[in-house]
Amino acid sequence: MLVVKIGGSQGVALEAVCRDLSMLVQQGQQVVVVHGGSAETNEISVKLGHPPRFVTSVSGFTSRYTDRTTLEIFAMVTNGRMNTLLVEQLQKVGVNAFGLSGVDGRLMVAQRKDAIRIVENGRQRMLRDDYTGKIEQVNATLLRLLLNEGLTPVVAPLAISPVGDVLNVDADRAAAMVAGAVRAEQLIILTNVPGLMRNYPDESTVIPYLPRVGLEQALSFAEGRMKKKVLGASEALDLGVSKVVFADGRVEHPVLDALDGKGTVIS
Amino acid sequence: MLVVKIGGSQGVALEAVCRDLSMLVQQGQQVVVVHGGSAETNEISVKLGHPPRFVTSVSGFTSRYTDRTTLEIFAMVTNGRMNTLLVEQLQKVGVNAFGLSGVDGRLMVAQRKDAIRIVENGRQRMLRDDYTGKIEQVNATLLRLLLNEGLTPVVAPLAISPVGDVLNVDADRAAAMVAGAVRAEQLIILTNVPGLMRNYPDESTVIPYLPRVGLEQALSFAEGRMKKKVLGASEALDLGVSKVVFADGRVEHPVLDALDGKGTVIS
Repeated sequence: MLVVKIGGSQGVALEAVCRDLSMLVQQGQQVVVVHGGSAETNEISVKLGHPPRFVTSVSGFTSRYTDRTTLEIFAMVTNGRMNTLLVEQLQKVGVNAFGLSGVDGRLMVAQRKDAIRIVENGRQRMLRDDYTGKIEQVNATLLRLLLNEGLTPVVAPLAISPVGDVLNVDADRAAAMVAGAVRAEQLIILTNVPGLMRNYPDESTVIPYLPRVGLEQALSFAEGRMKKKVLGASEALDLGVSKVVFADGRVEHPVLDALDGKGTVIS
Repeated sequence: MLVVKIGGSQGVALEAVCRDLSMLVQQGQQVVVVHGGSAETNEISVKLGHPPRFVTSVSGFTSRYTDRTTLEIFAMVTNGRMNTLLVEQLQKVGVNAFGLSGVDGRLMVAQRKDAIRIVENGRQRMLRDDYTGKIEQVNATLLRLLLNEGLTPVVAPLAISPVGDVLNVDADRAAAMVAGAVRAEQLIILTNVPGLMRNYPDESTVIPYLPRVGLEQALSFAEGRMKKKVLGASEALDLGVSKVVFADGRVEHPVLDALDGKGTVIS
């Protein structure tokens, strides 16, 4: 079993990814796809007059401030646009893709972060009314049900809270939780860079292999969104996934190259 | 088995519908929900600078002109917004709802209408590049797979063409095809009127019972969107559904009232 995380529209070559996935699925490989949609959500939020806002937690992680309006836009774009178009693209190359989000059948249950301590203008304050969550449970049975029907699940980064609220979740960490739940051998995280760099953005410093014990240190030099990918990698390994690869999504064979060990392999 | 079609945001009391469905599902009734999203698509299309355009076919049916940009907005709004929020609302009242569209697992395969003969300013012309379709096949096995897991499918009105294009389909007729495929005993079509009126909009002329043979005549006096509902009813009965009800979606118990025979019952 393979879990592939595809970023938003920030340069990942979707057509090439779909071609690779088609080849793998035809060879009998079971794949679960998890995708993001941040960049497209930003664009459409602006057009709809509700521009995105980002906040930085005290531990240094940046995330989208998700009030209810933002949540509904995020759901619309990720689950309606990104997900549907990705399923369409996969169907066109012969993959019987099946789109869903963590809300459907309670696939991903998350604890809502009622209050987040953020840093703003150098001062700490509490942020409330945020519809983001941390996934606590993935319904692997549901994914296996689909996989056993020959379907390829394509998962949008929404979860549901225990009381039924839709929540925005980080797609990298969602992919990690899914990989753990379905006991994937490998989690491939496709990005728009060639891998984890020791000195971002110097691509000559890409780390080809990182042992698991090096992940904590990697958190300190990972920049921006790469921080969450490192966190996701760590969570996936903790859940029993044997290998995580940060790979370049912009090349001709993004998934096949990752399987060949290109990018940053963590195990 | 019951199929319930819920219109867009044009006055249908979604909360009341969800409450009714919750009661029925808890009693062991299997339900498939099909929804629209036209009104919301119009609103968001305008905001995104791509206002909706409607065309009238030579046979007098009005439909959305769906170029590729419109299709992507339609997919985003119906499959991302309407569907997710409806699933959320059902989950909140204890229904383990599962959203999908006809694209997922090729649930609904439709023939694309490559060219539609329309009437514009009194003259006929051909319209091409339209992404609408007529459903030809519904994968009932997939719906049963979900139902047997205790899930309640919530279906957005998108279909897939044989070559993998996403298509906009009429939600009333999609509901009819779904009802036929799952061999539903009843198809309930919730609207923002009390039923089929002989003289629209005179509500005192609502027809309480229409025998199947009266459907053809009904096509002549049904107004606007009601025309497609009549067509849907006819298709559902042809496919073996024993009863179709056009019911008021704005009341306190929209679904229970329909089951009690309120509205227009066609059989």
